[in-house]
Amino acid sequence: MDSNGDLPFLLDVHVSVNGRSSVPEKVKGRQPGWSVRPSDMANRTYNPIRAIVDNMKLEPNPDKPTISLSLGDPTLFGNLPTDPEITQALKDALDSGKYNGYAPSIGYLSSREEIASYYHHPKAPLEAKDVILTCGCSQAIELCLAVLANPGQNILAPRPGFSPYRTHAESMGIELKLYNLLPEKSWEIDLKQMESLIDEKTACLIVNNPSNPCGSVFSKSHLQDILAVAARKYVPILADEIYGDMVFSDTKFEPIATLSRNVPILTCGGLTKRWLVPGWRLGWILIHDRRDIFGNEIRNGLVKLCQRIMGPCTIVQGALKSILRRTPQEFYHNTLSFLKSNADLCYEALAAIPGLRPVHSSGAMYIMVEIKMEHFPEFENDVEFTEQLFVEQSVQCLPAKCFEYPNFFRVVITVPKVMMLEACSRIQEFCEQHYHHAEGSQEECDK
Amino acid sequence: MDSNGDLPFLLDVHVSVNGRSSVPEKVKGRQPGWSVRPSDMANRTYNPIRAIVDNMKLEPNPDKPTISLSLGDPTLFGNLPTDPEITQALKDALDSGKYNGYAPSIGYLSSREEIASYYHHPKAPLEAKDVILTCGCSQAIELCLAVLANPGQNILAPRPGFSPYRTHAESMGIELKLYNLLPEKSWEIDLKQMESLIDEKTACLIVNNPSNPCGSVFSKSHLQDILAVAARKYVPILADEIYGDMVFSDTKFEPIATLSRNVPILTCGGLTKRWLVPGWRLGWILIHDRRDIFGNEIRNGLVKLCQRIMGPCTIVQGALKSILRRTPQEFYHNTLSFLKSNADLCYEALAAIPGLRPVHSSGAMYIMVEIKMEHFPEFENDVEFTEQLFVEQSVQCLPAKCFEYPNFFRVVITVPKVMMLEACSRIQEFCEQHYHHAEGSQEECDK
Repeated sequence: MDSNGDLPFLLDVHVSVNGRSSVPEKVKGRQPGWSVRPSDMANRTYNPIRAIVDNMKLEPNPDKPTISLSLGDPTLFGNLPTDPEITQALKDALDSGKYNGYAPSIGYLSSREEIASYYHHPKAPLEAKDVILTCGCSQAIELCLAVLANPGQNILAPRPGFSPYRTHAESMGIELKLYNLLPEKSWEIDLKQMESLIDEKTACLIVNNPSNPCGSVFSKSHLQDILAVAARKYVPILADEIYGDMVFSDTKFEPIATLSRNVPILTCGGLTKRWLVPGWRLGWILIHDRRDIFGNEIRNGLVKLCQRIMGPCTIVQGALKSILRRTPQEFYHNTLSFLKSNADLCYEALAAIPGLRPVHSSGAMYIMVEIKMEHFPEFENDVEFTEQLFVEQSVQCLPAKCFEYPNFFRVVITVPKVMMLEACSRIQEFCEQHYHHAEGSQEECDK
Repeated sequence: MDSNGDLPFLLDVHVSVNGRSSVPEKVKGRQPGWSVRPSDMANRTYNPIRAIVDNMKLEPNPDKPTISLSLGDPTLFGNLPTDPEITQALKDALDSGKYNGYAPSIGYLSSREEIASYYHHPKAPLEAKDVILTCGCSQAIELCLAVLANPGQNILAPRPGFSPYRTHAESMGIELKLYNLLPEKSWEIDLKQMESLIDEKTACLIVNNPSNPCGSVFSKSHLQDILAVAARKYVPILADEIYGDMVFSDTKFEPIATLSRNVPILTCGGLTKRWLVPGWRLGWILIHDRRDIFGNEIRNGLVKLCQRIMGPCTIVQGALKSILRRTPQEFYHNTLSFLKSNADLCYEALAAIPGLRPVHSSGAMYIMVEIKMEHFPEFENDVEFTEQLFVEQSVQCLPAKCFEYPNFFRVVITVPKVMMLEACSRIQEFCEQHYHHAEGSQEECDK
């Protein structure tokens, strides 16, 4: 012991206890030395967005303030604050002093009742027992995959699609099979190709509607066609409806569970987008199982998996009743009309730019834009295009490679209108400077 | 389509798309019918406490109000409210409007800096890069196990011990090996037996100090002996110090990381106990790696694993600075002196009861009580004893079987003093009614 009672380094390494020698050679079975490596799970856990964005070590143009159209965080610019009623609800929950203790791992019964009645639909009835509260929609998705799929099985997810589906699946040793969305059909699913991916190891089909990154919203009939495939192939559906109800005036959102009487569906949602509080991390799973196909086994499986981290923040759970009941309709309306006008504005501006082809969006917070690469021969792909756009114009967009889709980029439309306009005109300047008329060999590829 | 545009049930099942028939026989590879089963992971995820407690389908004595000494939730009885400064900190975070968006998955840098400086120690220095914020201490433990161990490896944990260690380990296919704590030595570790469990597949050693369920606090020299084994066998330590600083006046808590210069240690903690807000679900991992044995690989592994559910509630993160800086010392002091007086009161009352032997506790919120089973021949074990105690006296205690330890029960000492006294006198009445002097064959087992 040194004067501070601390173990000297040497003793710390080679102290001999019970007279047993401890020279590394005699350490039975173990390496004679430190060897601590991350688990296979940690190594497998991979977020494509982080991998791509974190490797973009580029400086923006110092003469132009950066405009970020890359993050799907509606709170980023302060122009879309949450409603005062929502903040007040949290304060009331705090003041009640009733929500500081442990809640059940799947959430307070009263909070689950509120979600059940809020999302109850005559064709998709819900009770508290059908609701599980989670740490954001991300955990909801993780729990659904964890309960439905074993390592070695596969799940189907959209391309382009939300990259965490891959993060979750591969983290758990589940194979991700990608079905195609068709830009020429407003990003509807290529049903034939999707169906061809289903095999005996397919554990579930992820349907993301409204879509991130596409901003598309499926029609009722398309959803019915998707359900028909699931029903015929007996594949349960994981419905990622975190953007549910975030659709523009001229569109209607149909919760997929309201269109099927027999396909078992786990619907994932949360406060994040509709109530504009992504950081609060309150999500949920709605269990739609009217034919008792999931049964108690899947329900109990979800409950047991929740016991690992014991649920979301209780204060937010305590505020849920007021958030759902007291948030004024104007709040939802204003958010959506703002998004709609920004979407139109962005679409029109980008549609007028040679070499770009934006795809109309009717919901969520995004527009996907095709880069006619043959007109930008300097750039190998969408990653190089968006990198150079950032370097020259200080406008940041995610290359669609982040969504496993080539030659597109995603624009986030939650930025203030003036920023949206400025960004579009910078993108125009950038494209005009780099646009090449397709000639000769280019002409060929055009055909 | 029916009048509501809903798919008739039959069509929903056997609709034919692209003219392809869909009779089950032709479904290639898949079962001709629904078969959705929970994953092996879900089946493996098992919480001993839930399994035991949920099976206790018993009614309390209708003539006596129930006193629950079973839940480790200090907020349960309202006698240990959190400090007004802590609630105010959350309101300020809300009002700032700065904490509604996504934080980095490992937490805001500023919040991690606060934790680093709060837990910084000359012998265990910490910077923000050494801190990861989690959804409660439960997720902190899960992340540490997930990054350190592969399925098929094993980890060492205490018996008696906190049952979620098993839940997490088995959920991930990791074997749990239990080392013994010795009641006659104030629950110190049987180091020889612990060391004998270490083999080439041992991924980490869990050290829980102060202890749940024992309420014991390890001395500096015992911690140094534990470190010596870890150092000699090259086993990293997961230090569960969620009850750190919750020790009674006459005892000192030594963070294990301050006693070693070379054993890599992941220390798990959170706001739950010291600040009395378990439901807020803010925990953390402190990475102590002064010999760079974990290195960037383990750090990056933890970061990647955090990206799955994207961190704890941002409002609580935003409040962290004020919570750590503004909570008055009186708050901590009052909590501890209350716990100490309840611990003494409970110990003295139970020590006087024939057939029971409480073990002194010096921290956390618990006392473990041995049942001299030979004096209670009616009861097979601690589960039957506590069940009957509940039926007759409406006093609820967890049988130590929940902690994989026989013939003890755990008493939670956070209840109001008057309840503590009432509970002890009911336990006394119960024991007096069921106590048998060990005679004859009993005498034998006594020897």
